[in-house]
Amino acid sequence: MSWNKPMPADPVVAVAGATGAVGREMLKVLEQRAFPASRVLALASERSAGQKLSFGRQELLVEAMTPASFQGVDLVLFAAGSAVVRALAPAVNAAGAVIIDNSSEFRMAAEVPLVVPEVNPDSVWEHSGIIANPNCSTIQMVVALAPLRQIAPIRRVVVSTYQAASGAGAGAMRELYEQSREFLADKPLTIEHLVQQIAFNCIPQIDVFRADGSTKEEWKMAVETQKILADDQLRVAANCVRVPVLRSHSEMINVEFSAPVSRAAALAAWQQAPGIQILDDPSQQLYPMPARVAGTDAVYLGRIREDPTVDFGLSFWCVADQLRKGAALNAVQIAELLLSA
Amino acid sequence: MSWNKPMPADPVVAVAGATGAVGREMLKVLEQRAFPASRVLALASERSAGQKLSFGRQELLVEAMTPASFQGVDLVLFAAGSAVVRALAPAVNAAGAVIIDNSSEFRMAAEVPLVVPEVNPDSVWEHSGIIANPNCSTIQMVVALAPLRQIAPIRRVVVSTYQAASGAGAGAMRELYEQSREFLADKPLTIEHLVQQIAFNCIPQIDVFRADGSTKEEWKMAVETQKILADDQLRVAANCVRVPVLRSHSEMINVEFSAPVSRAAALAAWQQAPGIQILDDPSQQLYPMPARVAGTDAVYLGRIREDPTVDFGLSFWCVADQLRKGAALNAVQIAELLLSA
Repeated sequence: MSWNKPMPADPVVAVAGATGAVGREMLKVLEQRAFPASRVLALASERSAGQKLSFGRQELLVEAMTPASFQGVDLVLFAAGSAVVRALAPAVNAAGAVIIDNSSEFRMAAEVPLVVPEVNPDSVWEHSGIIANPNCSTIQMVVALAPLRQIAPIRRVVVSTYQAASGAGAGAMRELYEQSREFLADKPLTIEHLVQQIAFNCIPQIDVFRADGSTKEEWKMAVETQKILADDQLRVAANCVRVPVLRSHSEMINVEFSAPVSRAAALAAWQQAPGIQILDDPSQQLYPMPARVAGTDAVYLGRIREDPTVDFGLSFWCVADQLRKGAALNAVQIAELLLSA
Repeated sequence: MSWNKPMPADPVVAVAGATGAVGREMLKVLEQRAFPASRVLALASERSAGQKLSFGRQELLVEAMTPASFQGVDLVLFAAGSAVVRALAPAVNAAGAVIIDNSSEFRMAAEVPLVVPEVNPDSVWEHSGIIANPNCSTIQMVVALAPLRQIAPIRRVVVSTYQAASGAGAGAMRELYEQSREFLADKPLTIEHLVQQIAFNCIPQIDVFRADGSTKEEWKMAVETQKILADDQLRVAANCVRVPVLRSHSEMINVEFSAPVSRAAALAAWQQAPGIQILDDPSQQLYPMPARVAGTDAVYLGRIREDPTVDFGLSFWCVADQLRKGAALNAVQIAELLLSA
């Protein structure tokens, strides 16, 4: 079963969940990249309907999202969570619209491509009406890993993350601001969106726990990486931690290969790869940092070192804006792929 | 060459660098543990002389530290940095006082024991007048690793740290407070003590860079761990990152053994080991967090999982107060060992 309806060159695009942190960023990215939409609709829950969102020089009136919202729409960028997309997907596809979904709902379904345009662009054509945007932590890691595989097969990855509040949505970002204010004023802390205090703290839990003691975020980083890189032998030990940063995720990554990979070879591969910026000069204390890359599009790499504690090891520090490459930008890049046929 | 002068049961103790973050904590720990000092002196730089520090119900007048300050002193807890202890150590030892030094100056010297009392207490007796307190990140990691070695030899450790501002001293802690205020007020950020912005940011650099691209902090974690555990085959891949937390360090640790180590076996070993507290119950969202353990003495472990990505793997999250077990408490515990002869 595949999708037969051709995508017009100037599709009608809906952003579903337009008032959230990712939805707002999707509108911004569509506008900044001059995506050739003939029309852009902003959809959200009943609660947010009637709000106005700026889109370039226009103003979009947010409409309540119902199954009837998708008539005449060609492409829907979903940033509305699993339950919403699960309920609406049949109606969206029946209306003839392709879904690019930012939730985890469909990512591991066999018939749903999980796409990072720099890594596995061709898989986008295997869709049956739904294309999944990977988890934010996964996206930036696979962008960094993919070029290395051209040098040598990857055996194992140990990754520890330093994830921003933005990954839990706009409410969590506000919570980090507000809690920080409360902390500095010596007031009781308000914990509402995140599971624990985030201000001046680290939370070694992202998403829910699974039976094996891992979190769902850690599981996602392992299985999504295997799916995107089409390598179910690749072993990923993921450790996911929330840190008091607003919107860029950082990852410390130790890679073990099957053959030697020098720092110079890795640099050469990365410098030719799309979407990667190297910021790595110890003599200048140059390396990527989350506060500095917020709002930008690249996956930034630094602290690149051969790791002598294992036969063929390399370690590096990887930072990207969670709302851009980790979510909205990647979704819009997928949409651009669909127009490139 | 060893030290022949016996330590009195009620030594005269000096804290050198008493006005810094670690020095103040040393005074607090001496008092809290009722260390049997006949007298406690607070020494600091000329600049800080004349300040008063509370010590239990007493008040200590801070004296300027000179080579003559150590006459009649039996034991000096140094928290004054490498240059100061390097300059003063000969005078201190000549005065008959033993040095317990918190700087990195003497740690790797063959004749200087590097001691974590829970791990290698016996090595303290090999001193020649100087005993080194390990690096804060190293201390909490070796407390956690030592009991595991009784189950199986450790082959390799991958550790990524989430280190607090306190590791860079009281000035860095104030800087995190002040920068956070500035950030929330949308003012320009003042960067003075740390190499980069710390508020709402992660800095993947602690201490200076070495020729191989590692930082000195990362090198310390590797070589000090080998020295304390007396195992120069143990491979440690350390990645050190500063996060916007005030005073507890967190570490994500992936261990590879030579033989199976189950989660249950690890828990059993840790539960019998001194200085360790297990906080690990996913069903209750229970795990250690830096903001919650500040001011306490244990090394806290959670997120304990077998790591199936390697033959015999275990991973866990390790948190301890950098100023307590990572510095002041460990130094006072070494002093207590010296009294136990």
